[in-house]
Amino acid sequence: MPRIIRVNMQTLEVKHQPVDKSYLRLGGRGLTSWIVSQEVPPTCHPLSEKNKLIIAPGLLSGTGVPLSNKLSIGAKSPMTGGIKESNVGGTTSFNLARLGIKAIILEGKPKDDALYVLHISSDKVSLLQANEYRGCGNYELHQKLRERYGDRVSILSIGQAGEMRLLAASIASSDVKGHPSRHAARGGLGAVMGSKGIKAVITDKATSNQIEIKDKKTLQKLSKDLAQKLVQTKAGLTKYGTAQMVDTANALGGMASYNFHRGSFEQAELINAETLYRNITQRGGEPSVPCMPGCVVRCSNLYRDKNGRYLTSSLEYETIVLMGSNCGISDLDVIASLDYHCDDYGLDTIDTGNVIALMMEAGVLPFGDGGRALKLLQEVEKGSVMGRVVGSGASVVGKILGLDRVPVVKNQGMPAYDPRTFKGMGTTYATSPMGADHTAGPAIPGRGGLDPSKTYDLTDPRGQVELSRDLQIIIAVCDAMGWCFFVGPDPNTMHLTAKLLNACYGWQVSFEDVVEMGRRILRWERDFNRSAGFTKAHDRLPAFMLEEKQPPSGRIFDVDQNEIENMFS
Amino acid sequence: MPRIIRVNMQTLEVKHQPVDKSYLRLGGRGLTSWIVSQEVPPTCHPLSEKNKLIIAPGLLSGTGVPLSNKLSIGAKSPMTGGIKESNVGGTTSFNLARLGIKAIILEGKPKDDALYVLHISSDKVSLLQANEYRGCGNYELHQKLRERYGDRVSILSIGQAGEMRLLAASIASSDVKGHPSRHAARGGLGAVMGSKGIKAVITDKATSNQIEIKDKKTLQKLSKDLAQKLVQTKAGLTKYGTAQMVDTANALGGMASYNFHRGSFEQAELINAETLYRNITQRGGEPSVPCMPGCVVRCSNLYRDKNGRYLTSSLEYETIVLMGSNCGISDLDVIASLDYHCDDYGLDTIDTGNVIALMMEAGVLPFGDGGRALKLLQEVEKGSVMGRVVGSGASVVGKILGLDRVPVVKNQGMPAYDPRTFKGMGTTYATSPMGADHTAGPAIPGRGGLDPSKTYDLTDPRGQVELSRDLQIIIAVCDAMGWCFFVGPDPNTMHLTAKLLNACYGWQVSFEDVVEMGRRILRWERDFNRSAGFTKAHDRLPAFMLEEKQPPSGRIFDVDQNEIENMFS
Repeated sequence: MPRIIRVNMQTLEVKHQPVDKSYLRLGGRGLTSWIVSQEVPPTCHPLSEKNKLIIAPGLLSGTGVPLSNKLSIGAKSPMTGGIKESNVGGTTSFNLARLGIKAIILEGKPKDDALYVLHISSDKVSLLQANEYRGCGNYELHQKLRERYGDRVSILSIGQAGEMRLLAASIASSDVKGHPSRHAARGGLGAVMGSKGIKAVITDKATSNQIEIKDKKTLQKLSKDLAQKLVQTKAGLTKYGTAQMVDTANALGGMASYNFHRGSFEQAELINAETLYRNITQRGGEPSVPCMPGCVVRCSNLYRDKNGRYLTSSLEYETIVLMGSNCGISDLDVIASLDYHCDDYGLDTIDTGNVIALMMEAGVLPFGDGGRALKLLQEVEKGSVMGRVVGSGASVVGKILGLDRVPVVKNQGMPAYDPRTFKGMGTTYATSPMGADHTAGPAIPGRGGLDPSKTYDLTDPRGQVELSRDLQIIIAVCDAMGWCFFVGPDPNTMHLTAKLLNACYGWQVSFEDVVEMGRRILRWERDFNRSAGFTKAHDRLPAFMLEEKQPPSGRIFDVDQNEIENMFS
Repeated sequence: MPRIIRVNMQTLEVKHQPVDKSYLRLGGRGLTSWIVSQEVPPTCHPLSEKNKLIIAPGLLSGTGVPLSNKLSIGAKSPMTGGIKESNVGGTTSFNLARLGIKAIILEGKPKDDALYVLHISSDKVSLLQANEYRGCGNYELHQKLRERYGDRVSILSIGQAGEMRLLAASIASSDVKGHPSRHAARGGLGAVMGSKGIKAVITDKATSNQIEIKDKKTLQKLSKDLAQKLVQTKAGLTKYGTAQMVDTANALGGMASYNFHRGSFEQAELINAETLYRNITQRGGEPSVPCMPGCVVRCSNLYRDKNGRYLTSSLEYETIVLMGSNCGISDLDVIASLDYHCDDYGLDTIDTGNVIALMMEAGVLPFGDGGRALKLLQEVEKGSVMGRVVGSGASVVGKILGLDRVPVVKNQGMPAYDPRTFKGMGTTYATSPMGADHTAGPAIPGRGGLDPSKTYDLTDPRGQVELSRDLQIIIAVCDAMGWCFFVGPDPNTMHLTAKLLNACYGWQVSFEDVVEMGRRILRWERDFNRSAGFTKAHDRLPAFMLEEKQPPSGRIFDVDQNEIENMFS
């Protein structure tokens, strides 16, 4: 029987609860957003005992379906003040699902400053004092935890940033190689975990499998077909990873550069996919690593320095652009080092990259100075007030620096696709309940919406509201399944979702039911945000993007604001 | 003919405009809030060229009516993100009114980083380059400006904090002795002035008087009676200043102490009115100084150190409590020095006092350590990132420090009256369009609302919503008149207001008309805030005040939240 693990951090009680009937058809983001909307007061302080951190595998996690082992983590976000779901690869989701755990709910707050580890094995769940790990970065922590709990455990953890409850603190998730390189990075969920006094959630490898597949044959057939299709169509991602977007975005004039002052970077070839691939392969790194079990795309990587020493894992487009071109930094080794430290401290590279660019804008350090950027970031480790500032995200730092050009929506820092060129993406940033988030409705070139007969030109303001809305619905479904959206955020995937759910659970859901699931999740999230104090006034990009023509394209963001505000009405 | 001075900081043009008919019956806060709501896009960035800074004398300023020379300054607030009016004593309002200037509107933004002084004399208004004053604190600046523009000028200015566009930056106003001790302190209006590139607004002494009083005799009689009444009833304020509230609030258990952990301070007698008075009189200071022309109450003061050297002016209840008991600091000389530096840098002492207390809560420095508090504050002068943090107000600093007990409403730091004891005041903090503001509806012991037959017990939750609403209406009227609310925020004053306006302007307004004026101002302000993204979710105190019983009284804030949210519906 599937169960919920409810951990009260005030009383230190761990309860195993049967799954409420209303939860049975929910998973991943569907479940985290439902529980947050049911149990968390929308006006509570996100770091107070009233907030809850919800961890939930997707509905397809653990089933053997390709790319379905992403884990959803949800709470009220300290960064945005609204609801948050951030999903992450790694191995936890697979194991939780196989152990029959539908969700972990961390609630309350410890009476003192103590730190704990939550250890989940097949026969019990234990809450253990863990003060000896205080101040550990994720790399050291994961090593120590593996020494103690075994090499095969899955780890979710916070670094120094989460302990300090910084707004950009992430939750690290160990990847298939054991590195803490995957992060539920956005919205400060690491700060919520820190406020609960949880340094790590450790899940033993599931030795049995509690998932009962109703129609194994169909599931296997569908999975095999999907895997084959992905292997054939995602060869670029497999070879180069998400860095393949560097040249595309740069050529379109939509790659964030110099704090969004420009949309292309004159040294793009130093940070593009070819350079990354060359560095990785020539130095004995690995260009194609799966971030979670069952991933045939393998867009992650392992990056070594000039001397062949491990530098970081999972160097991706967002980090390369926001720590690179957007800071005027063109040295991939420096960018990799910035990425490593963010992973180690447990910090979102998107918001933190924006912070460094804002500091450059304000003259705290010069654009392009990677050495000083690294020193600035390393303040986090010292726990200094400066380090706290660096980890507080773009919105807060823009305020401290007295800037009026601050690339945030709902206080969350903007990803690397500039909305003036990627207008559908910009529409997603403006309207997603998550704040500026590229994964929430990823309108990149070639993507369509729910109506396969329609096509969209990404630089044309017309149609972008429809496209963004459809993609947000599709993504909500993917996130509820545990699916990485590289499965293809499109109508085909929604059809496939229905078939897979029916094969897995013996349900009889249709394409329309699946799409309605996505709509419902967004509705819960928007309702929560409304009660938390969000209005249409928050569904907009920063004014400078509507007014400042960006070189070299000369574009502004010109999607009709009225249409944006009425996306869901 | 009264006129509007409109200064475009992009084109550096100064226009003299006739007063629009719709402005004629407006003044002070009525005029600033009307112009902001008409001309400023509610969703603009407060530091962008779209925001405007409005400076307006009250309707009774310059007329000789006692206590009527406060100046209103309005804009969209960088601190709250909503509309802001902050009013201030000093000599500018009197002179602007006599020069026939109904409002100054500063709009746009300079193309470069240059600083300007706006100089207003009886025959012309000039915008002058003022880069030589960059980095000057208010004290040095005022001295230099007087050397250049003469001893009799009135000065509004920003210090380093405003130049850095910090969220807690104030606008200093020279008092009758020429010290920059009066501040339009709340909500970061100094940052807006800084973003406009205006270092100072200098107004020459009005040598003529353009105000035409319709019925001089009646006005003089009413003024004389009012002055007599005030002299008789405000003797305590005259002798001790607002510090007289220390013993009262402390005895009631509602004086913010140790970051609002306590409602009384064990060393209160070291910072109370008696000690203040003794220090001032024994050291050759002045206990009773008017902050503006025509003030018979004279609640301001001039404070010297042990060696008789000038230390600060206008040491008041809010500063004494928030820099004193709320930081565990009991040395009045240290508090005076903190006040001096805030005045010099141009920082709100309420938000900055809260910042220091939050830093103490987080362990950055210990409670009670005045020496380190001073050093911390002096970082502002250095322009370091730490200094920027100190000047960024309680809400931002609470986020940086990862705290969930942060005493702010609408991101504005809480004044020194603890809402758990002063429940009407707490209701004002929750509901005022200005954020947590004690002057917006000052429900202290003995105050009543619009119905003189009703009395209120300040520690009883019942009736506080009505009391706060009535006081907010009355205060909006006072602020529109240029009145300090020590004139008596009560129905009598509303009756007197009608008589004075009729005598001054030949109008025929009634008590009801005056009250409706107050209601209307609040409506404009709430409408602006709604368009800027505020909802009922923002009309609430921080959760900890509703849950944490405060020693020694054991009270929580228990005014019904539903009633609060429906105050104006």
